Amino acid sequence: MTFVDDFKPQHFRLTAESDTFWRVTFDNPPVNVIGPEMMKDLKDLLTELEGNDTVNVVVFDSADPDFYLAHYDLAADPAIAEALPSPTGYAAWVDITVRISKLAAVTISAIRGIARGAGSEFVLATDIRFASREKAVLGQMEVGFTALPGGGAAGRLPALVGRGRAFEILLGGGDFDGEQAAEYGYVNRAIRDDQFVEFVDAYATRVSKWDHRVLGEIKDFINKYTRLADDEYPLHSDKFWGAAGLPGFQAISRQLFEAGLQTRSPIEYNLGEDIVEIAARNK
Amino acid sequence: MTFVDDFKPQHFRLTAESDTFWRVTFDNPPVNVIGPEMMKDLKDLLTELEGNDTVNVVVFDSADPDFYLAHYDLAADPAIAEALPSPTGYAAWVDITVRISKLAAVTISAIRGIARGAGSEFVLATDIRFASREKAVLGQMEVGFTALPGGGAAGRLPALVGRGRAFEILLGGGDFDGEQAAEYGYVNRAIRDDQFVEFVDAYATRVSKWDHRVLGEIKDFINKYTRLADDEYPLHSDKFWGAAGLPGFQAISRQLFEAGLQTRSPIEYNLGEDIVEIAARNK
Amino acid sequence: MTFVDDFKPQHFRLTAESDTFWRVTFDNPPVNVIGPEMMKDLKDLLTELEGNDTVNVVVFDSADPDFYLAHYDLAADPAIAEALPSPTGYAAWVDITVRISKLAAVTISAIRGIARGAGSEFVLATDIRFASREKAVLGQMEVGFTALPGGGAAGRLPALVGRGRAFEILLGGGDFDGEQAAEYGYVNRAIRDDQFVEFVDAYATRVSKWDHRVLGEIKDFINKYTRLADDEYPLHSDKFWGAAGLPGFQAISRQLFEAGLQTRSPIEYNLGEDIVEIAARNK
Repeated sequence: MTFVDDFKPQHFRLTAESDTFWRVTFDNPPVNVIGPEMMKDLKDLLTELEGNDTVNVVVFDSADPDFYLAHYDLAADPAIAEALPSPTGYAAWVDITVRISKLAAVTISAIRGIARGAGSEFVLATDIRFASREKAVLGQMEVGFTALPGGGAAGRLPALVGRGRAFEILLGGGDFDGEQAAEYGYVNRAIRDDQFVEFVDAYATRVSKWDHRVLGEIKDFINKYTRLADDEYPLHSDKFWGAAGLPGFQAISRQLFEAGLQTRSPIEYNLGEDIVEIAARNK
Repeated sequence: MTFVDDFKPQHFRLTAESDTFWRVTFDNPPVNVIGPEMMKDLKDLLTELEGNDTVNVVVFDSADPDFYLAHYDLAADPAIAEALPSPTGYAAWVDITVRISKLAAVTISAIRGIARGAGSEFVLATDIRFASREKAVLGQMEVGFTALPGGGAAGRLPALVGRGRAFEILLGGGDFDGEQAAEYGYVNRAIRDDQFVEFVDAYATRVSKWDHRVLGEIKDFINKYTRLADDEYPLHSDKFWGAAGLPGFQAISRQLFEAGLQTRSPIEYNLGEDIVEIAARNK
Repeated sequence: MTFVDDFKPQHFRLTAESDTFWRVTFDNPPVNVIGPEMMKDLKDLLTELEGNDTVNVVVFDSADPDFYLAHYDLAADPAIAEALPSPTGYAAWVDITVRISKLAAVTISAIRGIARGAGSEFVLATDIRFASREKAVLGQMEVGFTALPGGGAAGRLPALVGRGRAFEILLGGGDFDGEQAAEYGYVNRAIRDDQFVEFVDAYATRVSKWDHRVLGEIKDFINKYTRLADDEYPLHSDKFWGAAGLPGFQAISRQLFEAGLQTRSPIEYNLGEDIVEIAARNK
């Protein structure tokens, strides 16, 4: 019985395309929020991958063409995720994103649909981001909640998009489609949606055929020169949770839930725009 | 009487679009050079903003569609600007650009027209640069004067455009139109001129509605990871003023003034090209 | 008798376009591999340039429109290059690439044709990279040989293309055409092939007319902020040569030679793709 056969995650599927190429498909209807059960299963997957010296590449995609990972689950009790084991000792979402960024396996986000907030932070923590030109939407709308992103966007974006565009993305909080995200380096490249799956799979299949050792050596050097020190990330998380406890964040969240947050509603599609009016109302 | 009502800058206008959104419009005919009066007023504006915890965003634009900020005023006595108060203790232009880069407010350059030399350095010191696709021109032509840029271009460009393009921009000294500047990351993006004002104002208005505190937190983290240490900039300034005292710089300047520098003449429009012949003549 | 008149390199030509503008044209048929004779002559050229305070700019181009520098010469005995004098004390290819990156003269790669492996590393070590839109091909296919690039690609790419794209280039090992390379920042820009020579020569001619001293000052500052410490590069080289001694690397090389490596054959044109099947066969 292999890990893949034995592992039964609740909100994503794990598929072994081969011994060296695994696929994780997010599937947490209605909009793929990142909740405590998904986080528990991601932590178990990370523990497996940290001890695995066969898997070369893991592709993270979504069963829902409209939502990649909508954002953090704001309806769940945060204490549930924080009670999970944390090998790094960091808060739950930081533990996951830091550990993803340190795997020996090459991690690829195959982004179709919306990836905002923690969804965007997830893809930023992986090594490579491919986006559907027509269907990908990325954004960090936390600023509209009166919070800075808690999972490290401010730490990871500058190494991808540079200083000026990191400011624009985080201070504006707006949406970036696949093409704009590629122009900024927020994603590696945008691929026409009708060629997207084929492109991603060809790249991952290629990587799956290389020598496992050399992939680790290459990753080690690039990480040495470009990865922020782990202990920066708890500083971001603490600021996020500090803001989340304030009345402003809570009032904005409540009004967003009244407008349909975390249901398959217009507010989830248009959150990047609609949050402005709700934020302004709560100043 | 508010600061905005009371403040009477000579070479730009200050407009409060709202309590949280200010606009600075450069207006120093004939070509918007950066002279000692403008610098005095910029320093006063910076002092106000450093103590202001209401203004979220400041947009810097130009009353002249052809010239954003042409360059440093080479006709003025440098001693006038250097005699102004300098809270950082640095030379006048370094004091201004370093302080801009440290404001709590989000600073946005809305670039229409020519921004060369110190004009380019001004926009590099702001957080975000939006450029008119048709009308923006950026460049650092100091190399043609036998000088390196004294206000920090060599310190700020690499974090935006990377190593190779920073070399090309500074060692070539040529002009970059809006589209090329956006491809390089020299500006965040180029926007069609007929949509430019609307785009910039929509972004700034959005930022003006956010919580003031969180903008500062986001800026602090990105600055922590991407802003060069302040004490690098005096090294650049010293090199610039050292070169400016040499016969080569002075001969080139004199010949440029004879050709119409700092008047509304072809030399100001074509300085990026025309300086080559004058530099070569003075080798 | 000047150095240019006296110097007789075997596998490239040196032309003085003027006192301040030199051109190096690689010419080592059939595919411009980087072998010990070329390395000896490059080292002699570097020694001259290190002591030369007249030459402002050196353009490196190729006599072969299909091959810029195919890759390291894998048929030569590595001991020959390693026996050459090494002023840095580093392995031969590291000595050359580190010294190029520290010259006072501005170095420009004018890339037409294929530049893979060490050929790509050569252009990464120069200051500026211009690519023919139609004819340039860049790639680091070492991963397919079970090796990481030994001449510093993992150290130089992140400062040009950012973290995510550095992963994609080095972990995939595939080819990048001129346009894609420009989108990533792997090259400064891609220029239409029918305008390529004119564009490169105009830029270099411009630089050739500037003051020599100021070019060095500009380079010193950008190098201070963006150049990796020299002593990182031997770590890469040691990993490369370690892998090159293993059976996997040797089996893959042997099969590539059987397929026509280092001859004017389809394998040299399609190496970025064809190596996948050969690597997979040797797992």
